[in-house]
Amino acid sequence: MELEYLVILALILISTKIFGHISQKVNMPQVVGALIAGIILGPSVLNVLPGSEGDFLSKASEIGVIILMFLAGLDTDISELKKTGIASLVIALIGVIVPLIGGTLVYMGFFGFDISGTEHLLRSVFVGVVLTATSVSITVETLREMGRLNGRVGTAILGAAIIDDIVGIIVLTIITSFKDPSANIGESVIKILLFFVFIAALLVIMHFIAKFIEKFNNKRRIAIYAFAFCLILSFCAEHYFDVADITGSYFAGIILCNSKLKHYIDNKVTVLSYMLFAPIFFASIGFSTTLKGITTDIVLFSLVLLIVAIISKMIGCGLGAKICRFSNKESLAIGVGMVSRGEVALIVAQKGAAIGLIDNSLFPAVVLVVIVTTVVTPILLKIVIGKDKNNKNNIDEEVVNNTLAESVIITHD
Amino acid sequence: MELEYLVILALILISTKIFGHISQKVNMPQVVGALIAGIILGPSVLNVLPGSEGDFLSKASEIGVIILMFLAGLDTDISELKKTGIASLVIALIGVIVPLIGGTLVYMGFFGFDISGTEHLLRSVFVGVVLTATSVSITVETLREMGRLNGRVGTAILGAAIIDDIVGIIVLTIITSFKDPSANIGESVIKILLFFVFIAALLVIMHFIAKFIEKFNNKRRIAIYAFAFCLILSFCAEHYFDVADITGSYFAGIILCNSKLKHYIDNKVTVLSYMLFAPIFFASIGFSTTLKGITTDIVLFSLVLLIVAIISKMIGCGLGAKICRFSNKESLAIGVGMVSRGEVALIVAQKGAAIGLIDNSLFPAVVLVVIVTTVVTPILLKIVIGKDKNNKNNIDEEVVNNTLAESVIITHD
Repeated sequence: MELEYLVILALILISTKIFGHISQKVNMPQVVGALIAGIILGPSVLNVLPGSEGDFLSKASEIGVIILMFLAGLDTDISELKKTGIASLVIALIGVIVPLIGGTLVYMGFFGFDISGTEHLLRSVFVGVVLTATSVSITVETLREMGRLNGRVGTAILGAAIIDDIVGIIVLTIITSFKDPSANIGESVIKILLFFVFIAALLVIMHFIAKFIEKFNNKRRIAIYAFAFCLILSFCAEHYFDVADITGSYFAGIILCNSKLKHYIDNKVTVLSYMLFAPIFFASIGFSTTLKGITTDIVLFSLVLLIVAIISKMIGCGLGAKICRFSNKESLAIGVGMVSRGEVALIVAQKGAAIGLIDNSLFPAVVLVVIVTTVVTPILLKIVIGKDKNNKNNIDEEVVNNTLAESVIITHD
Repeated sequence: MELEYLVILALILISTKIFGHISQKVNMPQVVGALIAGIILGPSVLNVLPGSEGDFLSKASEIGVIILMFLAGLDTDISELKKTGIASLVIALIGVIVPLIGGTLVYMGFFGFDISGTEHLLRSVFVGVVLTATSVSITVETLREMGRLNGRVGTAILGAAIIDDIVGIIVLTIITSFKDPSANIGESVIKILLFFVFIAALLVIMHFIAKFIEKFNNKRRIAIYAFAFCLILSFCAEHYFDVADITGSYFAGIILCNSKLKHYIDNKVTVLSYMLFAPIFFASIGFSTTLKGITTDIVLFSLVLLIVAIISKMIGCGLGAKICRFSNKESLAIGVGMVSRGEVALIVAQKGAAIGLIDNSLFPAVVLVVIVTTVVTPILLKIVIGKDKNNKNNIDEEVVNNTLAESVIITHD
């Protein structure tokens, strides 16, 4: 039937919202609900997706993830980073390295320690990459609910989570560009460097033309041009620099994040995201999560990966915090606060699947990690920090609005 | 190249905005600019559209027109209709009948008066249908600029333009359902009646559950559910009742247009429209407008159709106004004010092309009618009415915001 994609879109919208609402009711982020909706619509349960609509949905889903990463870049708060500075950097770096090694070792533990083949090594490291990125939205949501977003711990976590994303994207960029076994490693490195030179050049250009652009009094039009810029940069990243398209859109957001017009762009693109494209993306993750044919090995792998995901982030970030002279309790809180993975882990995993670095059979493991870490983080945080009642009404809404919370979670309020 | 659709989307967004801006600068509606952008990107000039992306773009364009018609329905101001009442109805009806007959005769004049074959008759009548719908947005824009939106003439035009759309959609519905020559005409009529029974039932249900829905305090979510409702009704219209999908989405809008939540739904869906889907739709109209291979016959046909389009609407609506005891000058103003065709003529024409009732070679004629009538209307109106300087700052913004002006035109401000 020709118009069936309309019904599929409607089903995706309705089910992700309903399950999002349910997960919100039981204090889980709405992303979890959207994932579950996708799994139910997908081949594991209802299998409503006909093959012929695949192309439209996969392109719409790709646009969805490009928009999510653009918003993530756009919401990067540079001034926040300056406040927390070196501490956040240390926390983020060690917090990336430990899970990266942890994930790699888990994969090798299950599928062989062979490091002679590039392909196998890349696959192993890729599982590590999936574990690196903290979900800023979930962390911020939790801290905001607890009235702890502006404290020393909160600021450090926020800063680290931002750097964490950038580092994660850079690692992803490096790994994906090594993917082609025939590729010259030297050439890959040069291309990555050229990409960052390109981004730096754009940043400089933006710095000089920013004032001219800010005079632009048509807010709708500027949002559309910004969105087109994001699409073009996504294309250029992959087409000319062999870098993932989402890296391009993320840096398109970073380039625009200091603009005074950021707010308008963010507003309009956010609507585009939650009204259609983010639900399609999250549902399509669910579609690729086949629960059929799961072996005991995969279940075991998932559980081990989950445990390593939680512990490695706590140790990495906690250690980083300790080095930066936070107290034991504070370091533990920072470590726990960084545990949650969200959209970014899913985005990275899907990217890996698209270029053949992650097997579809490992998808349920990634989904498990995302769901459980997001569920566990608020619980652990509440135990470690405790709710600060005095501070509850003193939340810096500005900070909240400038973060991912509003934009990446598909339906925030 | 796999990601080329991103660049095509970016090109569509940038070019429709730039040309929209230019046409605005020379006092033309932005739709005209968007059409020209599409023609330039399309096969006539640059031909940037690769065949492989056709499916994604055609689905996105279909979603675009569904959204446009949903917004048109949503923006229907029932209270406005009650004010002008019977006069608007008379103006609209005669204003539909005269161009309908005019367009039919023009087609028959060029391609033969044979009324024995259903197919030929339908094709002739369809050209008439294309000429029926007045573009509310362009009329409102012009009246607003002249500070004449609230006068007796303005209200009559506004009311007539609304009824005009509804009548046009009903005529379209009847014609398209007769399209299949093997179809039983009795069955088609029954299906159309059943569709309106279905819509009436939904209206009654909406009346009873409206209060419950309005308690819904999550505005984002209600907008998403409303959009999903529009998608489902579009599908149902075509799948179960053999009625055009855009008829379904239009009535989805009508069903929701009295809701207190209309404003939120409108806001969010409008962003979806102008940020992506409306530009894709208008550009795709341009894509289908091949300027190559235009014969002298087509040029002649276009010019005659254009003249008939202008004169038939002026006569039809002017006559209607005269019957309702408007003065000669007022009747002329109302006739002139209803001349402009816009998105709706394009939407109807594209629907006709999709079901094989309009030949692609006739597309330039329709585009010509739309462009020239929209350019001519403000000029004629200014001559007939003249600018009322006293009233200029006394514009009822409420009325403006409740009309199509804000939403159908792809970038209004």
